[in-house]
Amino acid sequence: MKKNLGAGAVAFPTPVYIVGTYGKDGEANAMNVAWGGLCSSEPPCVMIALRKGRYTYDNIKERRAFTVNIPSAQYAKEADFFGLISGKKTRKFDAVNLTVKKSETVDAPIIDDFPFVLECRYVKEMEIGEHIMVVGEILNMAVEENCLTSKNTPEINKIDPLIFDPAESTYHKVGNEVEKAFSAGLAYLQK
Amino acid sequence: MKKNLGAGAVAFPTPVYIVGTYGKDGEANAMNVAWGGLCSSEPPCVMIALRKGRYTYDNIKERRAFTVNIPSAQYAKEADFFGLISGKKTRKFDAVNLTVKKSETVDAPIIDDFPFVLECRYVKEMEIGEHIMVVGEILNMAVEENCLTSKNTPEINKIDPLIFDPAESTYHKVGNEVEKAFSAGLAYLQK
Repeated sequence: MKKNLGAGAVAFPTPVYIVGTYGKDGEANAMNVAWGGLCSSEPPCVMIALRKGRYTYDNIKERRAFTVNIPSAQYAKEADFFGLISGKKTRKFDAVNLTVKKSETVDAPIIDDFPFVLECRYVKEMEIGEHIMVVGEILNMAVEENCLTSKNTPEINKIDPLIFDPAESTYHKVGNEVEKAFSAGLAYLQK
Repeated sequence: MKKNLGAGAVAFPTPVYIVGTYGKDGEANAMNVAWGGLCSSEPPCVMIALRKGRYTYDNIKERRAFTVNIPSAQYAKEADFFGLISGKKTRKFDAVNLTVKKSETVDAPIIDDFPFVLECRYVKEMEIGEHIMVVGEILNMAVEENCLTSKNTPEINKIDPLIFDPAESTYHKVGNEVEKAFSAGLAYLQK
């Protein structure tokens, strides 16, 4: 039996995207974004939804670029910090012990300690209520060499990404593999 | 040291949204959607990205409604099956042993065996390459009573949702909690 909870924004899993941009002063900033996801295969694109007036939004429009840095679970404290305060008021990288580099691909910073980063150019946007969905084309994916599979793809359990739970405001790890995709359902196809 | 992999659509975590719609013939259909995510808080909205020409897209435009059903890990085979074939060709619910009901809120079907469902009305859309991002307003969240927290919110570990890994095409479970959000980063804020 299901209970109706009414309107609300909860879904599982929800990502922990740490969005990197440069401000007008040239300083690197990072913001914790949970509303977002991949949104296109060709060209490969990712959507991040930002509240209007966010520092990161202005930075993206100015530089036409951003990065999506995927923190490993060991950086949960740093990831959370990036969501607690605006880059308008604080140089966030002064507070944390992380190394920031300029992306070689787009005009945005990379958090080098995080194992996986998407380097994106601004493509388009659409307004939804208080949020603006910003779409970036993923021009490059950069992965720590010790977090690659033998096929040179990012290995999820080595990257050890965070999952956000918007219902209880907690961060979780990714758990065990349960099935192979495009395979587990074949039994039903043959019926 | 990071290795550049070039353009590509991989991010972690990626969801397993089973999107429920009614076809023109009135039959319930379900599609496995991995490109998507929450995209607005007020009003609460979710984005799903569908390739052009998908049966589900036509159904949504016709009925102005869809559901996002979150499967628990025990339904990985059924979830995968819903991504293997088009509802244009197959009545997918004839092949699986799942109970489908009409939503009381929107003109779309609910998979009753799945513990968590978002009932959505079509709001707007935007094209990106081969995909169309469809935004739905979440008018109701329905959760199995035994998957609720004491505060009547969906409990992530009881719901036991699937995570899709687009790099290796596998499904994973959600793992252990590592930190509290809006809390773990406070130490850096006080510096």
